[in-house]
Amino acid sequence: MKASTVYQRYQTKMQKIADLKYAAAVLEWDQETYMPAGGSNARSRQLATLHEHAHELFISDETGHLLNELAVADGLDEIQQKNIALSLQDYNLKKRLSPAFVRLLSEAISTAYHAWVNARTKNDGAGFIEPLAAIINLKKQQADMLGYTHHPYDALMDEYDRGLTVTITDQLFTNLRPKLTQLLTAIQQLPAPDDSLLKQHFPKQAQWDFGMQLLEKIGFDFTRGRQDISLHPFTTNFSPDDVRVTTRIDENDFGNMTWSCLHEGGHALYEQRLPPEQYGLPAGEYCSLSIHESQSRIWENCVGRNPAYWQHNFTWLQTFFPEQLKQVNCPTFIGAINKVQPSLIRTEADELTYHFHVMIRYEIEKALLDGSINTKDVAGIWNELYKRYLGVTVTDDNHGFLQDIHWSHGSIGYFATYSTGSLYAAQLYAAACQQTPGLEAQIGQGNTSGLLQWLNKNIYAYGRLYTSEELCKKATGQYLNAQYFIDYATAKYQNAYSSYF
Amino acid sequence: MKASTVYQRYQTKMQKIADLKYAAAVLEWDQETYMPAGGSNARSRQLATLHEHAHELFISDETGHLLNELAVADGLDEIQQKNIALSLQDYNLKKRLSPAFVRLLSEAISTAYHAWVNARTKNDGAGFIEPLAAIINLKKQQADMLGYTHHPYDALMDEYDRGLTVTITDQLFTNLRPKLTQLLTAIQQLPAPDDSLLKQHFPKQAQWDFGMQLLEKIGFDFTRGRQDISLHPFTTNFSPDDVRVTTRIDENDFGNMTWSCLHEGGHALYEQRLPPEQYGLPAGEYCSLSIHESQSRIWENCVGRNPAYWQHNFTWLQTFFPEQLKQVNCPTFIGAINKVQPSLIRTEADELTYHFHVMIRYEIEKALLDGSINTKDVAGIWNELYKRYLGVTVTDDNHGFLQDIHWSHGSIGYFATYSTGSLYAAQLYAAACQQTPGLEAQIGQGNTSGLLQWLNKNIYAYGRLYTSEELCKKATGQYLNAQYFIDYATAKYQNAYSSYF
Repeated sequence: MKASTVYQRYQTKMQKIADLKYAAAVLEWDQETYMPAGGSNARSRQLATLHEHAHELFISDETGHLLNELAVADGLDEIQQKNIALSLQDYNLKKRLSPAFVRLLSEAISTAYHAWVNARTKNDGAGFIEPLAAIINLKKQQADMLGYTHHPYDALMDEYDRGLTVTITDQLFTNLRPKLTQLLTAIQQLPAPDDSLLKQHFPKQAQWDFGMQLLEKIGFDFTRGRQDISLHPFTTNFSPDDVRVTTRIDENDFGNMTWSCLHEGGHALYEQRLPPEQYGLPAGEYCSLSIHESQSRIWENCVGRNPAYWQHNFTWLQTFFPEQLKQVNCPTFIGAINKVQPSLIRTEADELTYHFHVMIRYEIEKALLDGSINTKDVAGIWNELYKRYLGVTVTDDNHGFLQDIHWSHGSIGYFATYSTGSLYAAQLYAAACQQTPGLEAQIGQGNTSGLLQWLNKNIYAYGRLYTSEELCKKATGQYLNAQYFIDYATAKYQNAYSSYF
Repeated sequence: MKASTVYQRYQTKMQKIADLKYAAAVLEWDQETYMPAGGSNARSRQLATLHEHAHELFISDETGHLLNELAVADGLDEIQQKNIALSLQDYNLKKRLSPAFVRLLSEAISTAYHAWVNARTKNDGAGFIEPLAAIINLKKQQADMLGYTHHPYDALMDEYDRGLTVTITDQLFTNLRPKLTQLLTAIQQLPAPDDSLLKQHFPKQAQWDFGMQLLEKIGFDFTRGRQDISLHPFTTNFSPDDVRVTTRIDENDFGNMTWSCLHEGGHALYEQRLPPEQYGLPAGEYCSLSIHESQSRIWENCVGRNPAYWQHNFTWLQTFFPEQLKQVNCPTFIGAINKVQPSLIRTEADELTYHFHVMIRYEIEKALLDGSINTKDVAGIWNELYKRYLGVTVTDDNHGFLQDIHWSHGSIGYFATYSTGSLYAAQLYAAACQQTPGLEAQIGQGNTSGLLQWLNKNIYAYGRLYTSEELCKKATGQYLNAQYFIDYATAKYQNAYSSYF
């Protein structure tokens, strides 16, 4: 049989698997936006069946035969060859997990998710310990099945960013921590910007309208996506032509919705611009969660907290909240949105202290995986690490270890990509500015299309054909270098803490 | 192996198939409520894959072996035996359709649906002819594959109401038509009620609030369901604990939303009360589309257009629309909502002329199936039949053959169940009243729980264990008898056309 015919079969098969995965994503989106409470039991089993089937189809002997045949076939173009190599790599890993295990995990995740929602309602972590222990137990099994050389956590991190390991991350964080601490200490000795203006009453509808226009402004295409409300903001997609973001609105906080719109919007811009003809194939998928996160961080921070961006947009923002912002001048606003302050909630943290939130979770997950700590000790260790790294006292479980959805989603090994994402963001943004003359000036005129174009060319177009590190090297000329973030943060805060108030 | 163990396997398999079907239902619900326009292509292929997989699993040899073993096994209880018998009957039918055919049909349906939406936008049927022809062609193939004795249309009708045939329906309609015509002629000689009060401006939000409370009042459980807006109202469910209705709101028409709430609400009450422990099995499914429709009709018409119901509720209704209804008295309102008038739109028709709308569609589908007419002739024949049966002139395609979603959904053979449903409704309602002393008096006091209880006991509890006719006999003591409807309609209109104005 001709290689092109076999490739066609491979593509058909992969696309059907993608159909099942995206169907699951629709059910998950619905679960977190519109599903009535009573629907949760049936939804859990429906999701388990979809995940089980998708997995079963992927690890079938038929897939294996197609991939092994294509791996040595002549006549495929470069992208086709890369797709096959990546799919084969996936196949060899994934077939180590049985469909029954995938179902079990999916069911445990549903149980844990509902326990987490419940525990949050009561603001009491006790009811979440057991479901979390079940997740950790399954994740240990998963690590063992997937295999690893040094640390079981490596096997899990690898699923979110291929090649990322404990060794690499430990080194990264060890290098980063003192620099961050030094910067934080310096900042804390300066008088802090006043951010009380952000804590006025911002009516729901005006926030919603502002957020929708903000998304549109950065390039989110509403004919191929939508925004809804959920408890925990997220981005999901069912194809590049149907990408959904969610947000939440706190009427007493300007930032909550604004940063989630820009953050999820950044994720969404990436998903909406992945090559549509590669639907279901690696070339049509995002590179890694680190790179995905870099996209959200670029829009949230490098753009959204950038003085240049608000030079143009602040008067526009004032039209949504005339009462609240008419007395505020732009430098005060920029100072407020760039205030650094150790705090309890990761998603509300400033760019600098954010990394400590990640490091805490990373330490805990790593220790849970290698068994050096136990699930029942998590709350205590969490609170201790917040004290040690950030000097803050955890007041209650909702402001402590219950704050994130990730563990209830079975996403263990994910958190580190928030830090690497933020580091990649600084490095990519610096490269975009360097390679695109006048980029910051454009942004200062309210035009972010140059940045979008650069990202399109250097990130979106490549799908999953390169690893995070390779993609970073291609785009910026260097592998990941945390110094870009330190330089970016130093410049930003020197500025924000001197000239803006 | 013990029969109970094999039964357990059968149940597990059926439930996984149900998971895939319900997942498709979630995707379909999303498609008609929230999906952005760009999502349609990927959604079509995702739905095709889900339908294909569900079908493939169901017609697998493994299912066949389980069913054939259980069909002769000892030790199953009566409901288990009925489940097996029904599943085996389904299996023997469905295995005549290949997974590839099911996929093809699903894809043709998506194409037709989008063509229909497009054609409606332009109010021009031309673009819908070819996709409709493709559907009809596939439906002819489907009829041939499923098999039939007398008429290809029998094979399709059977899918919506097992045992319903052209012979039965022809006889039913031949008997019904002159009686309806006689009643209609008599009514048309009387002065008509004034229904202009229903065409005032009824603000969207007040309509929505009223509809939500109306649903709650009849017993819709919002912890296990929800209502949204769509172009064409419908009910769907993903388990008995997640049942969704949709509605549409026309600010210049009181009836549009009100009747859709009661109609879809009636469907939903049925779905919310099917036995949850029978998830995925025949005993957990609705009896037939005729019986399903009887449930919507009971609430829409026997309750919702019943003078007794509004005796109690009219003052409550006035609180939502004080401006519009303060000058209106209850008898005038009841006259208005029971006005009989031949018209162009099926979903807005009164209870009496409604049957003619169905007969027209039935005649056309039957003729399309046996090839005596051609798709391109549909519009002409449609318009001619509306003139002949109802004396009305079709003004444009949106008020003609483009008005219904059904053909674009591939639902050929469905329409007759709207008439049988309406006939069953009258007969069931009469039985409920006869068997429940004081039922109408209760309804007159705003209490419909007695009716719900009767339906629960006589309809909902049996799932699909009996055919429509058997269930009707069990519940009312007789097989379907159209005279109940004629008597009901005669009494209603004698009343509405004499005492109410």
